[in-house]
Amino acid sequence: MNWGKILQLSIFGESHGSTIGITIGGLLPGMKIPFVELQRDLSLRAPGQRLTSPRKEKDHFEIISGVFEGKTTGAPLTVIFPNLNTQSKDYEIHKKIPRPSHADYPAQIKYKGFQDLRGGGHFSGRLTAPLVFAGTFAKQYLKDRGIGISSTIVEKEDLEKKLPTLIQEGDSIGASISCKITGVPVGIGNPFFDSLESSISHLAFSIPGVKGIEFGLGFDFIGKLGSEVNDEYNFIDGKVMTTTNYNGGILGGLSNGMPIEFRLVFKPTASIFKKQKSVDLEKQENTTLLIQGRHDPCIALRAQIVVESIAALAILDQIWMGEYYG
Amino acid sequence: MNWGKILQLSIFGESHGSTIGITIGGLLPGMKIPFVELQRDLSLRAPGQRLTSPRKEKDHFEIISGVFEGKTTGAPLTVIFPNLNTQSKDYEIHKKIPRPSHADYPAQIKYKGFQDLRGGGHFSGRLTAPLVFAGTFAKQYLKDRGIGISSTIVEKEDLEKKLPTLIQEGDSIGASISCKITGVPVGIGNPFFDSLESSISHLAFSIPGVKGIEFGLGFDFIGKLGSEVNDEYNFIDGKVMTTTNYNGGILGGLSNGMPIEFRLVFKPTASIFKKQKSVDLEKQENTTLLIQGRHDPCIALRAQIVVESIAALAILDQIWMGEYYG
Amino acid sequence: MNWGKILQLSIFGESHGSTIGITIGGLLPGMKIPFVELQRDLSLRAPGQRLTSPRKEKDHFEIISGVFEGKTTGAPLTVIFPNLNTQSKDYEIHKKIPRPSHADYPAQIKYKGFQDLRGGGHFSGRLTAPLVFAGTFAKQYLKDRGIGISSTIVEKEDLEKKLPTLIQEGDSIGASISCKITGVPVGIGNPFFDSLESSISHLAFSIPGVKGIEFGLGFDFIGKLGSEVNDEYNFIDGKVMTTTNYNGGILGGLSNGMPIEFRLVFKPTASIFKKQKSVDLEKQENTTLLIQGRHDPCIALRAQIVVESIAALAILDQIWMGEYYG
Amino acid sequence: MNWGKILQLSIFGESHGSTIGITIGGLLPGMKIPFVELQRDLSLRAPGQRLTSPRKEKDHFEIISGVFEGKTTGAPLTVIFPNLNTQSKDYEIHKKIPRPSHADYPAQIKYKGFQDLRGGGHFSGRLTAPLVFAGTFAKQYLKDRGIGISSTIVEKEDLEKKLPTLIQEGDSIGASISCKITGVPVGIGNPFFDSLESSISHLAFSIPGVKGIEFGLGFDFIGKLGSEVNDEYNFIDGKVMTTTNYNGGILGGLSNGMPIEFRLVFKPTASIFKKQKSVDLEKQENTTLLIQGRHDPCIALRAQIVVESIAALAILDQIWMGEYYG
Repeated sequence: MNWGKILQLSIFGESHGSTIGITIGGLLPGMKIPFVELQRDLSLRAPGQRLTSPRKEKDHFEIISGVFEGKTTGAPLTVIFPNLNTQSKDYEIHKKIPRPSHADYPAQIKYKGFQDLRGGGHFSGRLTAPLVFAGTFAKQYLKDRGIGISSTIVEKEDLEKKLPTLIQEGDSIGASISCKITGVPVGIGNPFFDSLESSISHLAFSIPGVKGIEFGLGFDFIGKLGSEVNDEYNFIDGKVMTTTNYNGGILGGLSNGMPIEFRLVFKPTASIFKKQKSVDLEKQENTTLLIQGRHDPCIALRAQIVVESIAALAILDQIWMGEYYG
Repeated sequence: MNWGKILQLSIFGESHGSTIGITIGGLLPGMKIPFVELQRDLSLRAPGQRLTSPRKEKDHFEIISGVFEGKTTGAPLTVIFPNLNTQSKDYEIHKKIPRPSHADYPAQIKYKGFQDLRGGGHFSGRLTAPLVFAGTFAKQYLKDRGIGISSTIVEKEDLEKKLPTLIQEGDSIGASISCKITGVPVGIGNPFFDSLESSISHLAFSIPGVKGIEFGLGFDFIGKLGSEVNDEYNFIDGKVMTTTNYNGGILGGLSNGMPIEFRLVFKPTASIFKKQKSVDLEKQENTTLLIQGRHDPCIALRAQIVVESIAALAILDQIWMGEYYG
Repeated sequence: MNWGKILQLSIFGESHGSTIGITIGGLLPGMKIPFVELQRDLSLRAPGQRLTSPRKEKDHFEIISGVFEGKTTGAPLTVIFPNLNTQSKDYEIHKKIPRPSHADYPAQIKYKGFQDLRGGGHFSGRLTAPLVFAGTFAKQYLKDRGIGISSTIVEKEDLEKKLPTLIQEGDSIGASISCKITGVPVGIGNPFFDSLESSISHLAFSIPGVKGIEFGLGFDFIGKLGSEVNDEYNFIDGKVMTTTNYNGGILGGLSNGMPIEFRLVFKPTASIFKKQKSVDLEKQENTTLLIQGRHDPCIALRAQIVVESIAALAILDQIWMGEYYG
Repeated sequence: MNWGKILQLSIFGESHGSTIGITIGGLLPGMKIPFVELQRDLSLRAPGQRLTSPRKEKDHFEIISGVFEGKTTGAPLTVIFPNLNTQSKDYEIHKKIPRPSHADYPAQIKYKGFQDLRGGGHFSGRLTAPLVFAGTFAKQYLKDRGIGISSTIVEKEDLEKKLPTLIQEGDSIGASISCKITGVPVGIGNPFFDSLESSISHLAFSIPGVKGIEFGLGFDFIGKLGSEVNDEYNFIDGKVMTTTNYNGGILGGLSNGMPIEFRLVFKPTASIFKKQKSVDLEKQENTTLLIQGRHDPCIALRAQIVVESIAALAILDQIWMGEYYG
């Protein structure tokens, strides 16, 4: 449940329990709460947007520790998001008949039937709201130091055409998000176990639905020659730059001053509203199931801000870890 | 320099320093040293094989702690690989004129010129030998429990045709390795920060040259429909299985009993023997450089065993972490 | 803010903020919430008991995650204790004029004036309520496996005579608590950095007011001869025992099967109601201050259950860490 | 086997194996190797001094990574101490007949007979040599920033009279060491789990033979009144000071600018040359044993430098952890 060395995250909550939340340790004292940015970022993740789930799951939050008179105290900041509007239908059935491509089956074995499956429980994408909250703080801090983070859905144009039909058919689709971090100083990160790629990918695979990550040219390095894709150096305006950025801003686990670029792939939302084959774990026989409800046809639509958030968190922890270098 | 919670790794050494090595904590007492397997695995990684670097860098190792009368004691096991045959040419020049796509430039900024650049120093791929050593122990332990690990170079056939020309031209090429882990019990791993994908990817990006990882269908999830790629369940011989394995054996960060499948991409070896553009950091002007020496035209050729090793290490740590569940 | 390897604690909150609380990771799924024991243990720590602070700080708690239908789910359990009855007097003055032997002064420097000092803020002994909550779970689990924990105030008899006068005079007094853990299996713990003494002492010094810890004979080892205080072995009822237990049940960082015995000293409550010398950090001159309010004359009176709690937590984490040994 | 967050230690080795050693991560690049200080500090710990063990166990060390041209590179520094002069007598007998107050018995249970008991194996006090090595680096760094560390054996005068007789009689004696750290800036450390006392005590109990620690007045706080032992503030030469230092320089887990003062107690050396009662674990019956060899009559004599070392390591890690505060 924990992540981070200087910037420490501890996440908790189940989707249809009373609340979800996060405790953030290591924040500097005196940071202003970026209310406007928090509302903006959380609303980008929230359902109820065009072409996303029509659920009215308001991301209302409450800071319950670590803030005094509108500023961080330096003590752990805990924020909770009370769960409202959680008319849980019978999720218990999925302990018996697991939904394909959901965590139901392995969770049933691991947690021996005691897990709270309602709305996905602790596995729910809803837990990315606390991650976004933490990420907004990190982004704000980084922005003040000239570090910017942006992202795009790579297949945006194509997707927007397909979605109305998909929604109608109760189907879902996979997509990818590319993310860019500019202004990171040279030399952030470490060789081997604490490489910048290790940090970012560790957090990236914490986002439900992510099944791949690549930096720079990534899988397109296959079949490419070194003479084609080595990033040569030259001075531009007195600054060391590379003419290309096939390595996505990271060499040997360290930032090289160029934009850090990575891309994440999200599988199609596991919940689809078509009859699917499954098993009845009690009766020990094959069966079928038909999920009902409201879901996003494409996880990536709401995940951009989540991706930016984990990027900010990974970079900030690495920057702070290197601060003692002076 | 450290990785792991129960199985603890601590890596050290520079390529042309006196030794490289690793300390492995958490090994059970009474494990036999798998000498035959160690020799086999280390020789798979060692240079001097057909189509790889002709360097005669012998992976001779010496266990200096944690073993008594041929078996592990339960205390930390340290193994060192003395560096032989290290006729260092003048690597110091690369602190001034960094090699494209190597760590030279960010390392120069981070370590302020004090880094040992000879042979890649602490960034060298040579440090994967200790990783393989640890991995062989892990694989052996897993094998005794019915867990098997294998890998292949995806582009093997095509690559073997291209390599002689590449070697002659002093160029290099990117490639990918797919890895498969069978027999992992259901329910290993955790949601969010300690997901199985997070564990594996964290270690995977510790391997020099890795620029991407995908699980199951990975980036091919893009544009696929949920109705096409959800993994439906059915009973096969009384066992819960999925008919497809698009998720690569992992759901919600937990193993689901199907083979765990992932693929890594390696960029082309950064060292190529063609004139490249770079900068002179002292003179603050553009320049060119021509690297000389002996290098692998394709990192992936020797990296298969490294990939299998990190897979074994990640899985074993997660299995041991879950042991208290009983 | 974090502690523990398998059993993971993450503590948060300020004494007069909206809540304090803790997130507990690693709990097994299916554990019953020990409501009776929680009420008993929390009431032992709560103020308002005879000879302790008359504050009516009710330790009312609310579990906001990790529990479903009265049992743990296996996901992180978060419990909050809303802060009621917090009529904060002007604590801000203590950022300017720090109270002797309180954290005011170093906190002012570290947190640059942004800390929430009300009621002690994040330094408050009130944060031991969440520790007791976690400890009750741990004690319950251990008890079911035959491991018992008890404690006593060493100077109890003498203290009880002195307290009425001390309360009247607005003074406080130091005291010690001894703690005994029975039934711990042989071989729990590790040599060096993860010794059982390291684990227990690390947590013990997290309790506000603790200034010393000793195991077994502790400081009475001074001047004793090995021939007097070595713990000799003998069989009692077919079981390996020591005739004495000067080492307090721990040898080389490992449990030896005898009761684990340690003693903690608590300094006198820093808050006393007598005029004290201090400094005015703004005016940069010496001054005096007189604290008013209601406080415990002796921390140890309410701390017994806290000591038992940290003992249970340290032992349980070490037991679980060793589980993979089988 | 690991300790530390920024400054990372990883210890290994068995007393009569081929080597012992330590890997130190997080060292800044460009630090000079303090050869003179290392020789001085290691010789203070080494046996063969007056009134200590006459063994000629030379603390010869070899740095095998992390140093280039006499300075640290910033990569992990590994140092090994080859074990010489290790004429192991039959230690195997102690797996069967454990020595009182040694780790033999719990180690036998934990490691199932596979542990290397020769010379104490991984439990040996000899492993404090690598700790001293790391500590000397830390002390040197701190010294350059005005932070000094010193220690004394509290019972020195009395001990020196008793030792000749003790040596003759093959007995041993317990003693205590007090340690003082001056010049630590205000505000180092954290509340709760990362308190300065937690850090120091965690490492202190990693030293073989330590059975207690107290800060400031420590156990003498028992029975003392707040009005007697609160540390009042006043300005001295324009600096905030306390007139007394009963809290040993730490309030609420944070340094307050006064000298940090703590005291450790060491039990008598467990090895004494007198007949002792023990058990025969094979025959399951009581027996006696008589240890032979050469040992220190008082651990504390050689442990002063070890105590100073762990003090330096704990303080330095905490200082570096706080660096990002700026």
